[in-house]
Amino acid sequence: LSRVLLTGASGFIGRHAIEPLLERGYEVHAVSTKPPPPGNGGVHWHAIDLLDPSATAELLARVRADRLLHLAWDVTPGSFWAAPGNVRWVEASLALMRAFIAAGGERAVLAGTCAEYDWELLATREDRSGAPALCLEENTPLGPHTLYGTSKHATQLVAAALAEQSGVGFAWGRVFHLYGPGEQPGRLVPTVARSLLAGERVHTTEGSQVRDFSHVRDVAAGFVALLAAEQQGPVNIASGNGVTVRSVIELIAAETGKPELVEWGAVPHSPGEPAALVADVRRLAQQVGFVAATPLEEGVRETVAWWRSHGGAL
Amino acid sequence: LSRVLLTGASGFIGRHAIEPLLERGYEVHAVSTKPPPPGNGGVHWHAIDLLDPSATAELLARVRADRLLHLAWDVTPGSFWAAPGNVRWVEASLALMRAFIAAGGERAVLAGTCAEYDWELLATREDRSGAPALCLEENTPLGPHTLYGTSKHATQLVAAALAEQSGVGFAWGRVFHLYGPGEQPGRLVPTVARSLLAGERVHTTEGSQVRDFSHVRDVAAGFVALLAAEQQGPVNIASGNGVTVRSVIELIAAETGKPELVEWGAVPHSPGEPAALVADVRRLAQQVGFVAATPLEEGVRETVAWWRSHGGAL
Repeated sequence: LSRVLLTGASGFIGRHAIEPLLERGYEVHAVSTKPPPPGNGGVHWHAIDLLDPSATAELLARVRADRLLHLAWDVTPGSFWAAPGNVRWVEASLALMRAFIAAGGERAVLAGTCAEYDWELLATREDRSGAPALCLEENTPLGPHTLYGTSKHATQLVAAALAEQSGVGFAWGRVFHLYGPGEQPGRLVPTVARSLLAGERVHTTEGSQVRDFSHVRDVAAGFVALLAAEQQGPVNIASGNGVTVRSVIELIAAETGKPELVEWGAVPHSPGEPAALVADVRRLAQQVGFVAATPLEEGVRETVAWWRSHGGAL
Repeated sequence: LSRVLLTGASGFIGRHAIEPLLERGYEVHAVSTKPPPPGNGGVHWHAIDLLDPSATAELLARVRADRLLHLAWDVTPGSFWAAPGNVRWVEASLALMRAFIAAGGERAVLAGTCAEYDWELLATREDRSGAPALCLEENTPLGPHTLYGTSKHATQLVAAALAEQSGVGFAWGRVFHLYGPGEQPGRLVPTVARSLLAGERVHTTEGSQVRDFSHVRDVAAGFVALLAAEQQGPVNIASGNGVTVRSVIELIAAETGKPELVEWGAVPHSPGEPAALVADVRRLAQQVGFVAATPLEEGVRETVAWWRSHGGAL
């Protein structure tokens, strides 16, 4: 029986990783600073603050996990791009890797980000058909322009070198745009869904940005597949389908029945954001054997229904 | 009066940085786990282990330095290239940067390495005249192939992004090959000097590698010049002169009067080491206003004399 330590277990992806881990037969040790949710039978919960390296070392020495799925990070909507807390998570993630290896760990999978790719170069690169270039793990130039992207990328560099040095398996799952039930309210899909459900106007960009929106359940299952696989290094964990932000908002608006409340173009595009940001998912499909399955329409319908029943509670 | 916190103050470069800091009028707060050396009048010594982030935060809050010169790292000869301790120094260096900024720090200079440049690419690149390409801060591709180089480079990426985010000045001095009095015995110059002084045979490579050997006093003074300057980002701190390892050993052998004890070619070249590794020092000269002054012959003579009088003590 393989024993996995899952960090960020109360987070957006982490919550959805528990079920696929249990389905694959892992003994799941979930780490969170929050109290465990009700009804997660068979999961061992550990209330540990990973920003305290001595607590991390003590936990790893006690649990002796052979697999690590490290999803915890500071991703507070709005502030996380520039928050100095990113630097603490570099330190905490490296201390976690050291403790995992010291305790006999065998394979670690950590969460990276599409913000590691050089968005300024992406904005100018298109493939021969005129379509925007996809982000390809080893070909698309890396060059993060945010503290968040830089912190994630530096973590990858050091963790990968340490793992290689130590004979430990290592993979790095790059996350693109997420949506799904239970996302933090400040992000795009919850903001639009909750406002429209409340009958409030929504101010958006004109929405031409092409993004790779992946259902959080698919991404969590992709991380678990990567943990169970042998692929090393960076792997995009995304849908591989580029859709405009406009089309996502239109789907939400149609589900809520309030398309007239959307004020297109009321908000300018953020400077520095690329016109298109879409994952090449061949490595995920071919080397890891995982393909995101949730159609966008179905996922948006589920998400809007979730906010309809949970919107008042948040 | 500007107050500088100097880490690694008992180390090879750090020891030599104290005098130029005092000469420039800084109030010097020296950090070391070792007891202070005798006779460093006017320096405030702090016996702190920077690997303990809470001690680091407490020290910075107390000293409130406006300048940081961070030279401390694990550089145990032989083992430092692959030592997992490098990862602890990434964590410690980032925690130090956070504490420095939180305490009102204004400008930080940290020590990087020539091992951040991609040595595999260097080995294949020559300029048009047929001379080996020099390492140029922003043009030579970066791509460390060791845990040491990767850890240093990742520290630069995150520290620079954090400093920029925080409006704090930041520069990164890349060190090439060092020599001088008091170097750790396991390194090239001390090994050759001490063996020949003891009348023992020395086994070396055939010595065709071209390296940038800089006197440690020049490098320490270069770091202090960089701290006092306004230049941001990476700056090579080196002599800019490429010499063969053979010529350095021949100088040592001539000084000791024992050239016949050198067994050329008894040791193979290390795999992965480039044929030439020499700094382009235009940025150091033009933007920082510093040029290494010690001629190699003079520096080797001084170093051999130092080992003649100190060799028995180590």
